[in-house]
Amino acid sequence: MADDSPTQDRRGLVVLTRAECFDRIRKEPVGRVAFAADDEVVILPVNHLVVGERIAFQTTWGSKLQVAADQGPMAFEVDGHETSRSWGWSVLLQGHATIVHDLDERHRLSSLQLQTWAPAAENMFWIVITPQRVAGREIHSASPEEQDARDLRP
Amino acid sequence: MADDSPTQDRRGLVVLTRAECFDRIRKEPVGRVAFAADDEVVILPVNHLVVGERIAFQTTWGSKLQVAADQGPMAFEVDGHETSRSWGWSVLLQGHATIVHDLDERHRLSSLQLQTWAPAAENMFWIVITPQRVAGREIHSASPEEQDARDLRP
Repeated sequence: MADDSPTQDRRGLVVLTRAECFDRIRKEPVGRVAFAADDEVVILPVNHLVVGERIAFQTTWGSKLQVAADQGPMAFEVDGHETSRSWGWSVLLQGHATIVHDLDERHRLSSLQLQTWAPAAENMFWIVITPQRVAGREIHSASPEEQDARDLRP
Repeated sequence: MADDSPTQDRRGLVVLTRAECFDRIRKEPVGRVAFAADDEVVILPVNHLVVGERIAFQTTWGSKLQVAADQGPMAFEVDGHETSRSWGWSVLLQGHATIVHDLDERHRLSSLQLQTWAPAAENMFWIVITPQRVAGREIHSASPEEQDARDLRP
């Protein structure tokens, strides 16, 4: 009989497959990008597109994001949780970001009808993150007994 | 007559007060920390405590987080959104992280009964982020007319 139980990492978290990771990225309307700039770390929510395995988003954020986008590493994350079950998951995509300068590529991205919630602004530009690493983890759903024990935990 | 309209930034986003920022951090059971390590950026969800204006969380994550916690800048973020309204908000706290080595402080933090959802592990340690900057933004709720226009946007 095949073992259908999900793979777990050393901490007991369920390991999501690469396909599951991208599936969840696609389903979430809001993700978060993070990058380091000027001895600070910035985390910003974004509405995103998945183009192949790349993440695309639009921004007006200026100097810091441009610095990061031109040269630095950038991460993208989506997650979800249910408080009543003490349950959650997250997908982390790590790579490098680039500003899309190519006009054809910009038109192509714009044609994909990204729903951006932030107010429209002038000088919007596209950022693309090309992943070097994709990983997803999910907290193993607790059994009712485990849940009871968890709720009673001091 | 006093102007009760909320402050907006240059991009038209509502600026949350510092008190509102901490209020939202307190209400959210899940936040995210981000830090840079080894030419990569990491974003990880955490269950957190607010202690004064500091953020405390427990982790077993190893080398990368320890490097960041000992020396590097770290950011903490909470956010929320309603897809049906194309509405969202986020709070970003930027600072430096430290591992809590002091036994009394560790006992004090442990007594605060943080609900951690991840599986319990040995060698859990406390990380505290002391904020240097706290900022929150919210997308101005669209009026029905604006919402219609938004929904029809190509």
